[in-house]
Amino acid sequence: MVQLGLVGLGKMGFNMRERLRAAGHEVVGFDRNPEVSDVSSLADLVKALDEPRIVWVMVPSGEPTKVTVAELGGLMASGDLVIDGGNSRFTDDSHNAAVLAEQGVKYVDVGVSGGVWGKDNGYGLMAGGDESDIERAMPIFDALRPEGPRDEGFAHAGGVGAGHYAKMVHNGIEYGLMQAYAEGFELLEASDVVDNVPGVIKAWQRGTVVRSWLLDLLIRAVEEDPQLGELEGYVEDSGEGRWTLEEAINNSVPAPVISAALFARFASRQEDSSAMRAVAALRNQFGGHSVKRAGE
Amino acid sequence: MVQLGLVGLGKMGFNMRERLRAAGHEVVGFDRNPEVSDVSSLADLVKALDEPRIVWVMVPSGEPTKVTVAELGGLMASGDLVIDGGNSRFTDDSHNAAVLAEQGVKYVDVGVSGGVWGKDNGYGLMAGGDESDIERAMPIFDALRPEGPRDEGFAHAGGVGAGHYAKMVHNGIEYGLMQAYAEGFELLEASDVVDNVPGVIKAWQRGTVVRSWLLDLLIRAVEEDPQLGELEGYVEDSGEGRWTLEEAINNSVPAPVISAALFARFASRQEDSSAMRAVAALRNQFGGHSVKRAGE
Amino acid sequence: MVQLGLVGLGKMGFNMRERLRAAGHEVVGFDRNPEVSDVSSLADLVKALDEPRIVWVMVPSGEPTKVTVAELGGLMASGDLVIDGGNSRFTDDSHNAAVLAEQGVKYVDVGVSGGVWGKDNGYGLMAGGDESDIERAMPIFDALRPEGPRDEGFAHAGGVGAGHYAKMVHNGIEYGLMQAYAEGFELLEASDVVDNVPGVIKAWQRGTVVRSWLLDLLIRAVEEDPQLGELEGYVEDSGEGRWTLEEAINNSVPAPVISAALFARFASRQEDSSAMRAVAALRNQFGGHSVKRAGE
Amino acid sequence: MVQLGLVGLGKMGFNMRERLRAAGHEVVGFDRNPEVSDVSSLADLVKALDEPRIVWVMVPSGEPTKVTVAELGGLMASGDLVIDGGNSRFTDDSHNAAVLAEQGVKYVDVGVSGGVWGKDNGYGLMAGGDESDIERAMPIFDALRPEGPRDEGFAHAGGVGAGHYAKMVHNGIEYGLMQAYAEGFELLEASDVVDNVPGVIKAWQRGTVVRSWLLDLLIRAVEEDPQLGELEGYVEDSGEGRWTLEEAINNSVPAPVISAALFARFASRQEDSSAMRAVAALRNQFGGHSVKRAGE
Repeated sequence: MVQLGLVGLGKMGFNMRERLRAAGHEVVGFDRNPEVSDVSSLADLVKALDEPRIVWVMVPSGEPTKVTVAELGGLMASGDLVIDGGNSRFTDDSHNAAVLAEQGVKYVDVGVSGGVWGKDNGYGLMAGGDESDIERAMPIFDALRPEGPRDEGFAHAGGVGAGHYAKMVHNGIEYGLMQAYAEGFELLEASDVVDNVPGVIKAWQRGTVVRSWLLDLLIRAVEEDPQLGELEGYVEDSGEGRWTLEEAINNSVPAPVISAALFARFASRQEDSSAMRAVAALRNQFGGHSVKRAGE
Repeated sequence: MVQLGLVGLGKMGFNMRERLRAAGHEVVGFDRNPEVSDVSSLADLVKALDEPRIVWVMVPSGEPTKVTVAELGGLMASGDLVIDGGNSRFTDDSHNAAVLAEQGVKYVDVGVSGGVWGKDNGYGLMAGGDESDIERAMPIFDALRPEGPRDEGFAHAGGVGAGHYAKMVHNGIEYGLMQAYAEGFELLEASDVVDNVPGVIKAWQRGTVVRSWLLDLLIRAVEEDPQLGELEGYVEDSGEGRWTLEEAINNSVPAPVISAALFARFASRQEDSSAMRAVAALRNQFGGHSVKRAGE
Repeated sequence: MVQLGLVGLGKMGFNMRERLRAAGHEVVGFDRNPEVSDVSSLADLVKALDEPRIVWVMVPSGEPTKVTVAELGGLMASGDLVIDGGNSRFTDDSHNAAVLAEQGVKYVDVGVSGGVWGKDNGYGLMAGGDESDIERAMPIFDALRPEGPRDEGFAHAGGVGAGHYAKMVHNGIEYGLMQAYAEGFELLEASDVVDNVPGVIKAWQRGTVVRSWLLDLLIRAVEEDPQLGELEGYVEDSGEGRWTLEEAINNSVPAPVISAALFARFASRQEDSSAMRAVAALRNQFGGHSVKRAGE
Repeated sequence: MVQLGLVGLGKMGFNMRERLRAAGHEVVGFDRNPEVSDVSSLADLVKALDEPRIVWVMVPSGEPTKVTVAELGGLMASGDLVIDGGNSRFTDDSHNAAVLAEQGVKYVDVGVSGGVWGKDNGYGLMAGGDESDIERAMPIFDALRPEGPRDEGFAHAGGVGAGHYAKMVHNGIEYGLMQAYAEGFELLEASDVVDNVPGVIKAWQRGTVVRSWLLDLLIRAVEEDPQLGELEGYVEDSGEGRWTLEEAINNSVPAPVISAALFARFASRQEDSSAMRAVAALRNQFGGHSVKRAGE
């Protein structure tokens, strides 16, 4: 059993504390929300741990994570280990590692997949960092990952940054998978050949080539609301799709599916499209084709 | 100077009659709208022409064209010639030619580009059919096409159907061109780096690689309405883009740009997207990500 | 237990006979290959069955299926039932049903998913036709579908054609899913951040959002050949992706992911691309950019 | 008439010196290649100019431009002006401007379009910077831009960086335009309906909706080599398309056409595709579909 600090007790961090404690580990959690926090400050969290310490950071990516890591760097001691399990961009990891290295603190980045289901199912984990640091954190990884052989739910992906890189690509794939199911769903809904769309989707669950966990979730959603009519077709993105596409550009890798999935999300959030206004204007200019006037 | 019948005096046919008459040809026009028609029926139009007759059909593609051609077949005589200048799908041409062939009537299909500007600028023409039939109609083609060398505004593309095929591909390209300008326009509008979007677009008119007639039209539109805010981003399609994509599929030709342009039009006409509701539902299912409820 | 005829004992049909017999059904199989066939002709197969007969057709889609169905129509009697379990285009089904209806023979179409794994795992089934015909064939469907609740591996999708329509959309989705994984794989391979690509992919198997049966197969493939270097990136398509895209066009449904996946296959089979020669030529023309000469 | 220094006398800079001199301006050119250079060093170039000086930089984007600008900063004096006319990324401009500002030297960025044709036709120009600096350089812009109204070949796009931003978007559009023509060309080539592909493309030159300068260049190319068979379908990219796509991502602008055009170039340069190897492997795994073995 190990002892660790856990910073950030939101949707993900809260569940992870539960899962880690259920596995017998000692977790000291800190969150700005005192109702869920075990200690009242980051400094108290660090004080509450025996050296050499392990602190797992699970806060929003970007500035919040960088600030937390830098603060930890000031509080922790040589030989300690910080693990960033958030959705950081892999390019932040070398920065974070360097900041900590000034204090002799080690750094591991971990991509964590599984969402709200991870508490019970376990989380898929992809880690980046030095072998010895990974080994040290292995009891934590073993508690968080799903039951089964370790290598089916955990990978040491490479050096610092590789964990988040693997998670970024995982999420880029996820965009494409979701859009593929979504296009199929729309076509089934739009055509009138299949009468029983929810039944067809449900029947893909076993035996078919397209069976997957995402399909299981789509079936759940469609069972609750067969045409998904209670929702709007408005989809946020939290960055990993954009980063994946930027990496595809940087590496000259064609990514037509991942980019199409990302652009579909962008378009879903637009009230109206400048681009399509331009196309409408062009058709009107050359062909006298009628246009919709705004407000009509 | 030649004599010809012209069936269909809408936006295109009406202008073509003007241009043909201005070139000295004798045109007998028929339209269901008596205000613009020279004769009161298709039968009267055929009677008003000397044999061997030429009749140019300029009515909506699909059923209307097929019906008109079949009716003409019943009225015309061996040695006559029917020219379909509408936006027919190339697959209709062999059918139309066969119907007429039963009466010994010849058939030529012509793709006509240029929109409402053709009356003054001339129309780009792509013709399909037998060489002798094309030759016979050449005075008409010469009157309709733009000034300049014949081969810069007219082509004999191949046998029956080739004229409409060439026009179909022309329109598929047109979809892609418009969407390319449109994406650039949207990006200029969306970012805040360029203050003077209308000025930039206007300055692309001379000397640049992207100069074109479509760009000239975009400049006109932006001069009238700098952000195109009086329009809605709602874009119809009249079939040629779909047919081009279907031909790409039939010939195993990748057409990512033409398909993207077509799909952008489809999406522009959707109030809400089943596909994006499915993606929103999936994100909510696995990550507890918030969704927009319909009506919110 | 039921008795049925099974026409076509190839990769799919052969396995299905095994699975049906293992479930206790009586199967009379016919194939042009005498080594696997139970009878020597289609006529003998029909004769070997008690009325009212059920014959399951499992031959290549298109002409072979149409011809087989028409031949069966001539051999079978009123009240008999033909089930087309091949990968027919849904538009063939109304034709096949009409041909059989002339003899009073009923028709059901079934989309079958699961590939070579279906023999042991069971096949996902989507059926189209009249309720009473579906009911009659249910013992066969129950033997072929996977263990578990019936509605998780079988659906009555709608009237004649709906089974193949559902399977067509299933396969369109499958194209998108495979391409999404493939783009992610290529990016991991192309960048040098992740050292352990096979390990990362293997670790996605449990707990992650992207876990699926296709991922399990990718892991198998990568375990056998970590960079898939023994293969060429040459991918056939057997039609369902094209049909899905054509249906998307017919129904004005944007399908950017499915089309991108299809076009990637088209491109994978091209030695050289006319389109990209044109782009190279254009760059050379306006900018004097160097080009690769053929044969260089 | 004005006096200016011109750094970089490659394909673009050399022609621009000709055009400027033909307009009566005094140009002192510097290039590392002594055969084309008027002076032997950057220092000599600066010395040869009267204060307040104007130096136009026309060297490769990225490091070479940054280094040249920094060197000029060390040599020039307060009140001087540097114009970067190369294809720099707009994000480099604020850096370059800041480096020069330390010496009181002003900075203008100019996107230049027109390729090798600009010498005779004039160049399309998009400038970013302060109004007063733009005004000062106007005689140079007037000499370089095409004949005709100034605002049809020149725009002051906005502050520092806006000129290159406008040029970047221009080039993104250019990618899309070229790919649209290219897809149409490939489809005409692939199908056998149109016999006279070069004739059809040539006939699009006048009157049609798709007429453009790029089309004129395609016609030239096809006249020289009707099937473009002397070229390989291998297409480089020099960065602007990537940057446009990255800006689309940054601004949440869907860019399906520009991304498709960029990815087509990436794919054109791949000997073999890891992604398509993965798809082939998957098809083989689930369906036993045959694959091409490497080296077959």
